[in-house]
Amino acid sequence: MNFLEERIVKDGIVKEGNILKVDSFLNHQMDIDLFNQMGEEFKRRFEGKPINKILTIEASGIGIACIVASHFHVPVVFAKKSQSINIDGDVYVAEVESFTHKCKNQVIVSKKFLDENDHVLIIDDFLANGCALQGLLSIVAQAGGTVEGIGIAVEKGFQQGGRIIRNFGYQLESLAIVEGMDAANGTVQFREQ
Amino acid sequence: MNFLEERIVKDGIVKEGNILKVDSFLNHQMDIDLFNQMGEEFKRRFEGKPINKILTIEASGIGIACIVASHFHVPVVFAKKSQSINIDGDVYVAEVESFTHKCKNQVIVSKKFLDENDHVLIIDDFLANGCALQGLLSIVAQAGGTVEGIGIAVEKGFQQGGRIIRNFGYQLESLAIVEGMDAANGTVQFREQ
Repeated sequence: MNFLEERIVKDGIVKEGNILKVDSFLNHQMDIDLFNQMGEEFKRRFEGKPINKILTIEASGIGIACIVASHFHVPVVFAKKSQSINIDGDVYVAEVESFTHKCKNQVIVSKKFLDENDHVLIIDDFLANGCALQGLLSIVAQAGGTVEGIGIAVEKGFQQGGRIIRNFGYQLESLAIVEGMDAANGTVQFREQ
Repeated sequence: MNFLEERIVKDGIVKEGNILKVDSFLNHQMDIDLFNQMGEEFKRRFEGKPINKILTIEASGIGIACIVASHFHVPVVFAKKSQSINIDGDVYVAEVESFTHKCKNQVIVSKKFLDENDHVLIIDDFLANGCALQGLLSIVAQAGGTVEGIGIAVEKGFQQGGRIIRNFGYQLESLAIVEGMDAANGTVQFREQ
């Protein structure tokens, strides 16, 4: 097991309905030392890629993306979940369905901050059905930019998102891939990587 | 002028209605090297305080809070803007009015991540009327924790939030305090600190 898998075993909580709660260290309370380990690991896995920007989506992707970015020395852009009056009209838009919140959102990125010269690393905390990720891929495509890779903290390997995106040929690196969970005894099975 | 004031003069955009757009480096695209400078400066200003946790609010506070936290070596907790099905029922709740989005939100923090032993530094990107900040102060009070200080990137000094909160005796440190803006010629006046 790597450092993130060990942490999930130690502090993750398995609930009925294939819910894995990692809110004590990943997406409500955030362990910045752990995020720095993740940053080092993504830096290693995407070594040699000409990444000049990190793209993520609010809210829980932002913290990881910023700490990862401090290892790549590039800026972060985060996709916003609804039209704000402080965003110019000139935006890329994608529709994203949220598994957690059971709703559809439009996410937007200002055209000022993403264009055909950008070589993007996409970072997010979770990958399940892949809707959020497909929204971010759509936004990079609209901009004419290049996706150099995708870095995910926790992938639910028993859902379809990861398989679909790998089939498209993207370098998708998930630090922990959960193959199964058992709420009765609180155990988690990880995919061998 | 300090490093943040210089950056606002260089890249901030003044719009009619006292709107200062800093989305190219602070709250849509995020300059992580700048955030690290902010982290160093907050570390200096809150030197000697027994801070063991940083509290912020989604979404644009999270990036700054995480980078600042990497200088304090403490975890970050962010207040969430609406009830998620993945949050336990046992939460602190505060009501927050958003100037930007012209709406009221409930923000919540799980009781698991804040209690009477916590010495909290509150971090946010903007302070204007102070509603978000008062919500976070209310949450720390509900937890019985201690607010050791408040670190803000940009304060609109001509709005009431900063004055109210300083009158309550908090150490509120804003890296840039905007006293006035002129949309016609694009200039910003800062308070001497």
